[in-house]
Amino acid sequence: MSLERYLPVFDWGRRYDRAALTGDLVAAVIVTIMLIPQSLAYAMLAGLPPVAGLYASILPLALYAIFGTSRSLAVGPVAVISLLTASAAGAVAVPGSAAYIEATVALALLSGAILLAMGLFRLGFLANLLSHPVISGFITASGLLIAASQVRHVLGVSAGGGTFPETIQALLVALPETNWPTLVIGGATIGFLFYARSRLPYVLRRAGMPERRAALLARTAPVVAVVLSILAVILLGLAGRGVAVVGDVPRGLPPLSLPGADLALWARLLPAAFLISVVGFVESVSVAQTLAAKKRQSIRPDQELIGIGMANLAAAVSAGYPVTGGFARSVVNHDAGAETPAAGAYTAIGIALASLFLTPLLRNLPVAVLAATIIVAVLSLVDFGALLRTWRYSRIDFIAMAGTILVTLGVGVEAGILAGVSLSLLLHLWRGSRPHVAEIGQVPGTRHFRNRLRHDVAMDPSVLSLRIDSSIWFGNARAVEDVLQDAVAGRHRLRHLVLNCAAVNSVDASALESLERSRARLADQGIALHLSEVKGPVMDRLARTDFIEHLGGTVFLSHHEAMTALAPDMTALADAAPRPVIDARRPSPERPALPD
Amino acid sequence: MSLERYLPVFDWGRRYDRAALTGDLVAAVIVTIMLIPQSLAYAMLAGLPPVAGLYASILPLALYAIFGTSRSLAVGPVAVISLLTASAAGAVAVPGSAAYIEATVALALLSGAILLAMGLFRLGFLANLLSHPVISGFITASGLLIAASQVRHVLGVSAGGGTFPETIQALLVALPETNWPTLVIGGATIGFLFYARSRLPYVLRRAGMPERRAALLARTAPVVAVVLSILAVILLGLAGRGVAVVGDVPRGLPPLSLPGADLALWARLLPAAFLISVVGFVESVSVAQTLAAKKRQSIRPDQELIGIGMANLAAAVSAGYPVTGGFARSVVNHDAGAETPAAGAYTAIGIALASLFLTPLLRNLPVAVLAATIIVAVLSLVDFGALLRTWRYSRIDFIAMAGTILVTLGVGVEAGILAGVSLSLLLHLWRGSRPHVAEIGQVPGTRHFRNRLRHDVAMDPSVLSLRIDSSIWFGNARAVEDVLQDAVAGRHRLRHLVLNCAAVNSVDASALESLERSRARLADQGIALHLSEVKGPVMDRLARTDFIEHLGGTVFLSHHEAMTALAPDMTALADAAPRPVIDARRPSPERPALPD
Repeated sequence: MSLERYLPVFDWGRRYDRAALTGDLVAAVIVTIMLIPQSLAYAMLAGLPPVAGLYASILPLALYAIFGTSRSLAVGPVAVISLLTASAAGAVAVPGSAAYIEATVALALLSGAILLAMGLFRLGFLANLLSHPVISGFITASGLLIAASQVRHVLGVSAGGGTFPETIQALLVALPETNWPTLVIGGATIGFLFYARSRLPYVLRRAGMPERRAALLARTAPVVAVVLSILAVILLGLAGRGVAVVGDVPRGLPPLSLPGADLALWARLLPAAFLISVVGFVESVSVAQTLAAKKRQSIRPDQELIGIGMANLAAAVSAGYPVTGGFARSVVNHDAGAETPAAGAYTAIGIALASLFLTPLLRNLPVAVLAATIIVAVLSLVDFGALLRTWRYSRIDFIAMAGTILVTLGVGVEAGILAGVSLSLLLHLWRGSRPHVAEIGQVPGTRHFRNRLRHDVAMDPSVLSLRIDSSIWFGNARAVEDVLQDAVAGRHRLRHLVLNCAAVNSVDASALESLERSRARLADQGIALHLSEVKGPVMDRLARTDFIEHLGGTVFLSHHEAMTALAPDMTALADAAPRPVIDARRPSPERPALPD
Repeated sequence: MSLERYLPVFDWGRRYDRAALTGDLVAAVIVTIMLIPQSLAYAMLAGLPPVAGLYASILPLALYAIFGTSRSLAVGPVAVISLLTASAAGAVAVPGSAAYIEATVALALLSGAILLAMGLFRLGFLANLLSHPVISGFITASGLLIAASQVRHVLGVSAGGGTFPETIQALLVALPETNWPTLVIGGATIGFLFYARSRLPYVLRRAGMPERRAALLARTAPVVAVVLSILAVILLGLAGRGVAVVGDVPRGLPPLSLPGADLALWARLLPAAFLISVVGFVESVSVAQTLAAKKRQSIRPDQELIGIGMANLAAAVSAGYPVTGGFARSVVNHDAGAETPAAGAYTAIGIALASLFLTPLLRNLPVAVLAATIIVAVLSLVDFGALLRTWRYSRIDFIAMAGTILVTLGVGVEAGILAGVSLSLLLHLWRGSRPHVAEIGQVPGTRHFRNRLRHDVAMDPSVLSLRIDSSIWFGNARAVEDVLQDAVAGRHRLRHLVLNCAAVNSVDASALESLERSRARLADQGIALHLSEVKGPVMDRLARTDFIEHLGGTVFLSHHEAMTALAPDMTALADAAPRPVIDARRPSPERPALPD
C-alpha cells in the first residue's frame, strides 16, 4: 500500500492493457509533435538556448509518469513558469551567460526540493493562500507581459524589457528599425495561428471531420507554421535578409550532471524558487483536477507535489529548467486519448528521439515564428471577462485581482504574486472585522426568524433579538460590543436581549471578554442577556469558563423557544398568523428601518 | 458641535461647578503626591535623568485635559512605554548621551504625530490587531523584563541588560559585588511596599477607616518610602557608603523648545514610534473604558487618539518623553474623586510646583528605592493566571499569548509585539481554513436540526443534510469541496444534498467556483444540490451570478421546509414524535458516528 501511495505507477501499471497502450501511444505521438516548437519557444522565453526546452521535456515527463497521480497531465516547460524563471535568473546573472544557465538549473533543483518537501510533509494546503481571483489576475497579467516581451522578435528589433510600461516604451522607440521580412513572417504566423484556433475547427467540421479530430488537428497548427517557415527561410534565403533564426541546436540526449552546491546562489534564489513551486503546483493541480473530473477520476494533491517535485529534480540533473503541468499540452494529451501517465513517458521518448534526429532541421527556424506561437498561446490566457464578473460579484475579490494585475505589470512577477496574496489575506481579515448584525423578528406563521429590514416580521418591544452574522474574534470583538451598545441605546422598554448565535462559528478569548463586558454593561442598564442556537463547538468552550454561570439570562436551544419564554403573547399571535409567501430565491433587499 | 467634538473641554467645561472643582482638586493633590516618585522612577527606567519624568507629567497632562474624553484617565510616563522607549532609543544612541535624550524626544514627537493622524483619519480600529491574549502576554513579559532590569539598582551593582536571560545571567555574575546598605534599603522598601499593597488596606479598615480611604492611603506608600529613605541617607550618611542617590535634580519648569528635524533619525525611529503609539493607545483606551463603564460614562476612542497624541507632542516640546494613560495613576485619580479631566490639569500644576520647589529635597533619594517602587508596581502586572485560563479556553489564543511572552523575553519588546500580532493573525487565518461541517438531522418533535454526532436526530437515507459552520473563502474553499466529496462517497441511495447555510456568513469568488465545481460533480453522480437558510447578504451576491439558475436544486427558506419537500414521510414522522429533553446549557459531546 505504501509503495503504491508514493509510486502511483504501481497502481495503474498493474492494470495496463492493450487498449491503454494504444491510447497512450497515439496521444504521445500527437503531443510530441505539438511540444517540439512549444518547448523551443518557452526556453527562449526563459532566456535559455532553445534546446533547454527539449531537455526539460524528456526526463521530467518520465519521472512524473512514475510519481504522479493524474492520468492526463503533461509536464514540461510552461509560459508562466518560464517567465518566473527568466525573472529570477535575470536578477542574479546576465541572460545568456553560463551563470544564467547555472541559475536556472539551480531554480529547478530548489523548486524540486521544495515541492518534494511540501508533498512529504503534506503542506499542499499552502497553495490555498492563492485565491482564484489572484491566480486569474496573475495569469492575465503574465500573459500580457509575455506577449509584450515577444513582440520584439516579431518586429526583428532589439529592445529592452522590464516592467510592462518599460517594455511598451522600448518597443515604440525601436519601431523604426523593424525588419520587414521578419514582421511579415511573424505577422503571417500570428494570423495563421489565430485562424487555426478560432475558425479552422469549424471549417474542418463542416468538411465532415469529427469534432475531436478537428480540434486536435487545429492544435497542430504551430507545427505547420514551423515547417512552412523553415522552408520559406531556406528557399527565399531569408536568413541573409535580417530574419533571425534559431541557429545550431545541439544533437543528442540531455547531458546528465549533478548541479554544484552553491549555497550563496541558492540562498538568493530560494524565495523565487518558492514562488515558482507554489505557482507551478497551483496551475498543475487545477489542470489535473479539471481533467480528472471529466473522467470521474481523482488526484491526490500531496502526491502531485511529489510528482512535480521529482520532475523538477530530473530537470535539474538533465540540463533543463523549472517545469510543471501545462494546460494546453495536458488538454491535447487528454483529448488525444491518453489513458495513463505512460503517455507522458512515451512523449518523453518521442522528444528524446527528436533531440537525437530532428534538431539539425531546426537550424533555419525563424525566431519570429517561435515568438508568434508564444504570443498566440498566452493571449488566450488573458481573461478580462473574469475581471468584470468578479467586479459584479465581490468588490473585495476585484480589488485583490486588479491589484495583482497592476503590480505584476508595473513592478514584476514576484511582486505581483506577493501583492496578490497579501492583499487577499488583508482584505479577508478586514471583511471579517466588520460584523453584520441583524435585528431579527418572527416570520408570521413559522418558527423562523429573519432580518426585520428584509421581511415583515413580528417583534416585541421588551425583547431585542440580534443575530450576529460572524464569528467573534479579536478583530471584530470591539465592533460587536459597540453594536450591542448602540442597539439598546434609547430603548427604554427593553428588558431582554437575545443573541442568536446560529452564525457565530467561534468565540475567541478576546471575544469572550467583550461578551462579558457587554453582559455587565447590559446588566447595569437592567437588560438581561440571553443566547440562542449556540453551536456545539462554541458551547464546548464556553462551558469551560464561568461565562454561562454569570450570564444571568438563559441559553435557549432555538430562537423560537427564547421568544416563547420571554414574549409569550407576541409569539402566540405570530405562530397563529397566516404565513406570507416568500420566494427564497429572490433576495429581499434591505429597506430602511421603520420607526418603532 | 465640531468644536466640542475635537476639544472636549468645551463639553464638560460648560457644566463645571463647585462640586466638580472640589472633587478634582482633592484628586489632584493625592495623584500629585503619588506621581512624584513614580515619574522619577519611570524616567530612570527609560534611561533618562529623573527630571524628565517630572517634565513628562506636566504639559502632557494639561493638553490631555483639553483634548481627551475620559473623566478619570491620568496621563504620563508608564512602565511599559518607558521600557519601549529605552529599547528604541538604546538602539540608536548610547544611554545617557545627548543623542539618547534627543532620540526620546523624537520618539515623543513621532508618536504624537502618529496618534494624531490615526485619530483624525479614524484609524483607531488598527488597535484591534492586538488581541487581548497578546496584550496580556506582552504586559506580563514586560513586567518580568522591567523587574529584572531594576534588580541591579537594588543590589547596588552594575550589570548589563538585554534579553531576559542575558539580564539574569549578568545579575548572577555581579552578585558578589552587592552593596549591602543598598540591598538593605532596597529590600526593606520592597517589603514595605508589598505589605502596603496587600495587608495595609485590611489593617486600616479593621482600624475603622472607610474602604476607599484605606485603599488610597495604602497607595501613597511609595511616598512614605521616599521620605523615610531620604531621611535615612542624610542621617546615616549612606551616600558615602556606596548607596547610589538620584543626585542633583534641576529646579524649574520644563524648558520649552521645538525638537530639530532630523529626518534620518526619524526614519530609524518610526517603526518603534508606531509600536509605542499603538501599545500606548491600547493600554490607555482599555483603562479609560473600564473606568468610564463604572460611572456609566463613555469615551470616544478616535478622540482619545487625538488627546494622547497632543499629550505626546506636548512632551516633545517640553523635554519629556512618550506618555500615555496609566492604569495605577488613573485608578487613584478615579478613586480619589476626580470629576472631570480638569483634575489632570490641576495635577500638572501640582507637579510643576514640585519641580519648582521640591526638587532640591530629592538629592538624597536612593536609586534603590525608586527601583523598588518599579519592581513592586510591575510585578502586579504579571498575570500567569491569564495564561492558565487561556489554555483552558482556547489553545490557539494560548499559543499566541505564550509566543508573545517567549519572544518578548528572549528577543525583545518590539519583536515580541510583532510576533504576537503575526501569530494571532496567522492562527486566526489557520482556524478559518479548517471548516467544521456537521451532518444534521431533525430533533424529533421540533422543527430544529442539530448535529447527528451530538443529538439523537431523525434522518432520511436519500437526503444528506450538511451544515457548514464557516464562511467559505479561498482559504477553506478546497477543504469544503473535499468534505462534500467525502460525505457522499459510498452512499448509493443518496439523491439529494442540502447545504444548510445558516452559518455561512459570506461566500467569496473562489468559494463560488468551488461550489459550482461541487454542484457539477454531484450532478455527475446523480445527486441534486439544494441550499437552505441562505443569509440575505450572501443571497444578494449569489443572485448577481448564474449560480442559482444552474443549481438545479432548490433554495429553501428553512431547513424544515427542505426536508418536508425532499423527505416528506420521514419529516412527518419526526414532527409527530415526542420531543426529547435537551438542556442547551450542557453541551452534548460529540459521539462517534453510528453506522448507517
